[in-house]
Amino acid sequence: MFCFCKDQCYRMPVFFGGSDYDATYEATAFDALTVSFVQETSREALNCYLPAGFTLLTPTITYEYAQFRNVNFLAGGAYNIFQASLPVHFEGKKDSLDGVLPLVIWENNTIPILGGREESGMPKIYADISDITTIDGSYFSSVSFHGNTFLDFDVSNLRPCPESQFSSLKASYANINAIGLRYIPHVGGPGADLLQLILYPQSIVPYRIYNCEGSLNWTKLLYKKGLIHSIIVEQLSSLPLLSMSNPTLTKGKVIMRSPLCRVIK
Amino acid sequence: MFCFCKDQCYRMPVFFGGSDYDATYEATAFDALTVSFVQETSREALNCYLPAGFTLLTPTITYEYAQFRNVNFLAGGAYNIFQASLPVHFEGKKDSLDGVLPLVIWENNTIPILGGREESGMPKIYADISDITTIDGSYFSSVSFHGNTFLDFDVSNLRPCPESQFSSLKASYANINAIGLRYIPHVGGPGADLLQLILYPQSIVPYRIYNCEGSLNWTKLLYKKGLIHSIIVEQLSSLPLLSMSNPTLTKGKVIMRSPLCRVIK
Amino acid sequence: MFCFCKDQCYRMPVFFGGSDYDATYEATAFDALTVSFVQETSREALNCYLPAGFTLLTPTITYEYAQFRNVNFLAGGAYNIFQASLPVHFEGKKDSLDGVLPLVIWENNTIPILGGREESGMPKIYADISDITTIDGSYFSSVSFHGNTFLDFDVSNLRPCPESQFSSLKASYANINAIGLRYIPHVGGPGADLLQLILYPQSIVPYRIYNCEGSLNWTKLLYKKGLIHSIIVEQLSSLPLLSMSNPTLTKGKVIMRSPLCRVIK
Amino acid sequence: MFCFCKDQCYRMPVFFGGSDYDATYEATAFDALTVSFVQETSREALNCYLPAGFTLLTPTITYEYAQFRNVNFLAGGAYNIFQASLPVHFEGKKDSLDGVLPLVIWENNTIPILGGREESGMPKIYADISDITTIDGSYFSSVSFHGNTFLDFDVSNLRPCPESQFSSLKASYANINAIGLRYIPHVGGPGADLLQLILYPQSIVPYRIYNCEGSLNWTKLLYKKGLIHSIIVEQLSSLPLLSMSNPTLTKGKVIMRSPLCRVIK
Repeated sequence: MFCFCKDQCYRMPVFFGGSDYDATYEATAFDALTVSFVQETSREALNCYLPAGFTLLTPTITYEYAQFRNVNFLAGGAYNIFQASLPVHFEGKKDSLDGVLPLVIWENNTIPILGGREESGMPKIYADISDITTIDGSYFSSVSFHGNTFLDFDVSNLRPCPESQFSSLKASYANINAIGLRYIPHVGGPGADLLQLILYPQSIVPYRIYNCEGSLNWTKLLYKKGLIHSIIVEQLSSLPLLSMSNPTLTKGKVIMRSPLCRVIK
Repeated sequence: MFCFCKDQCYRMPVFFGGSDYDATYEATAFDALTVSFVQETSREALNCYLPAGFTLLTPTITYEYAQFRNVNFLAGGAYNIFQASLPVHFEGKKDSLDGVLPLVIWENNTIPILGGREESGMPKIYADISDITTIDGSYFSSVSFHGNTFLDFDVSNLRPCPESQFSSLKASYANINAIGLRYIPHVGGPGADLLQLILYPQSIVPYRIYNCEGSLNWTKLLYKKGLIHSIIVEQLSSLPLLSMSNPTLTKGKVIMRSPLCRVIK
Repeated sequence: MFCFCKDQCYRMPVFFGGSDYDATYEATAFDALTVSFVQETSREALNCYLPAGFTLLTPTITYEYAQFRNVNFLAGGAYNIFQASLPVHFEGKKDSLDGVLPLVIWENNTIPILGGREESGMPKIYADISDITTIDGSYFSSVSFHGNTFLDFDVSNLRPCPESQFSSLKASYANINAIGLRYIPHVGGPGADLLQLILYPQSIVPYRIYNCEGSLNWTKLLYKKGLIHSIIVEQLSSLPLLSMSNPTLTKGKVIMRSPLCRVIK
Repeated sequence: MFCFCKDQCYRMPVFFGGSDYDATYEATAFDALTVSFVQETSREALNCYLPAGFTLLTPTITYEYAQFRNVNFLAGGAYNIFQASLPVHFEGKKDSLDGVLPLVIWENNTIPILGGREESGMPKIYADISDITTIDGSYFSSVSFHGNTFLDFDVSNLRPCPESQFSSLKASYANINAIGLRYIPHVGGPGADLLQLILYPQSIVPYRIYNCEGSLNWTKLLYKKGLIHSIIVEQLSSLPLLSMSNPTLTKGKVIMRSPLCRVIK
């Protein structure tokens, strides 16, 4: 008979065995390139996305592309990410902390999508996300679904950031509190069978950080061409654009400490 | 503030809105081609995969390839499946029924993988699964991970099945009770935060069924080349091979009634 | 020693052997779906694309999408095409004929690209071209390069064409004279080492033809994002748009008689 | 009217314009990782692949994988290669030189395939070639067609090569005479319309070279599963295996001087 071993961790399919819980395991992308844009928008518009207990630290939304290579849980493989997140304070009954609330995370590899969603409540969905390409000192990539581009960006004029900025960013990257809202649907009707807020500790260890110029462009898609992506793009691209920061480009290492995830209340 | 609407169904990301619950919705592949092999093996070996409450109807494991096209929830798009399942009887405290217990379902599209896992506990994981190709009356496909083939099959000598066989199979396909073990991991340690048996009603409406000859071949992979796939392949390919049925090839329509899923006990 | 067999046909790599010349061989897509748009534009603009000996039959450019499945030279595999072509009369020293001059043919499979270019001078280049998807009676697809969509189209409101139109189109599809300008570059400098006009006889055998409504949309790309595609898109999308026909959608079989190609002069 | 500009270089499609001839242009992969295996085999078996004028320098065949990133002619994009080549001396009527004769070059990007075949006679064909992955100090990749793996290799136990070996290899990599047999088929029958031997000067600039242990494995495929690949695999995997060298892994830069190609006789 199939039985769960009490001290083991499982993922579906469960039938072929579990694995030991290892609190020290770090999911790591040893070769990471990230590009960040910070958009200033209206507090009112963003508040619509904040669950109870959350407040905005600043009325901004951060868009971040990441190209992950030499990823340990993929046997040295690679994947790319594009995420939209809000800087938040969470004030719960037990927990009080600052963090980052991802609204959506597009990824081009199913393996981290499954782990991130089911273990940490990260709102990950699949999209095609091209590797960074570069020509004449500019870097660019695009995000698409079934051949339909819905987002692209360019950065150029890379200048190494000043030492003080590097130190400050490095410190802020050392302990990132990503927060997921794990929602597992109720079977056979509306609502959830499981609903939890999960804190997911992550770090970026920067080797080099560049200040850049650049732009980020949305292309709206009809529902039939983009399905769920269309709806998300419609909403995000409609946020008031008060200002867009100059982007930064970071090369470094990204560490995701999924065994240290914990439910916050 | 973001609030869940009480009567809505959500999936992660939840922030962009939910959808109405529609009990009549049928996820449908209007153009489906399936190939089935039934392997007779030892009851003892299969029993290791049966959770409490389950018994084998026959000591067999069914391997089924499906090429789904014109899929309504993909805006007419396509995906392919390869699954291993057991014919089971479930005798619970409340429920008593015959069904099919998938041990693993490989799919090449993340969208149905997410829905199937989170809403129905289907043990779906990603693999590259080629479309059926055909030459000189034989049909073939293969399943691979990161360029490493771990399964392939061939069928040939297709003969339309006799009318009586068609009627019998059609009847058996009309109400398929797929059963999933939805396992959502505990946060920050071994075990589950949610563990349910879910009945997922499905149907195949056959247009044509063929009896064929054919073969199914596994290629074992080192862990580093196949990750979780290696472990599954290792186990499935090691099941005693008492006999392998002649395969059948079916063209038809497949209907998955996810809103009618229910927890069984 | 490696020698060419005098009566054999070779393709690079030549070292592993040639194949017999078979004048009756027909490269065939047994399951083809095509969508055609005809744009009326200025004769002057199109004349810039006509080599010596060619004149326009009408001042129009035809855009044609094709989804080819069950292709015999791909062991039953599939590929998609999007081409821009001109209706032409060729008046040479020896030959006088009407035909179709493709300006560019995008394809998503390298095998027919190589054969078409090297054996017939067809101006084929690679792009990602999505399978037709369909929802609520509309059909659509897009063409992209490295995640950047540069072309997409929609058709809807399909109505079977009248019998007289079917007969007329069927007749016109029976003998299509595609004409390629085979240009093999000079080694180590400008110019060509081989330059020929090649007539490539093809047929479409329609099973069903539909009149539709629809639209075709170009998205210009910066050179760095689209390379050669950017230049082509720039030029084609800049052709004066005097009118765009309603599209037709055809289901049928496509036959390409590459062994019957001949040089025209 | 469309006319060729006398001093311009063209590729199909020619209609959208040519480009200047630039003898100094270097197609460059700024980030290249290569893995080489040298198989000792029978001189007799290899002689079957040598056109008139060629003799073997040693009775060996070299298998080389390359992962090219940051490629200038792909706007910073990437592609992978796997090639089989012979070390040869060419003694022609005019030219006498040592070089490398590729028998087949698999690549996973159509753009360099087209350029290499048509401009330099390189025997390039498409295959899926995975990026190098790495786990526990071993590196591996595989080559497949339509989901069917036909070649894979592993290297491990990397040790930086001694300085003297580095210098010697660096010198030998500085001027690589790749030789292509450009074969453009005759139209409408057996034979060639253009047949030339082309010398293609290339360089590898190594940054680091490692001596390794490893293995290279072929998987034969039925014709229907591998098409032309099946035939090539059949022949190469059947070469007598007298010994296989330990592999080397090189990180560096690869430069291909296509404008300096020249016909040799």
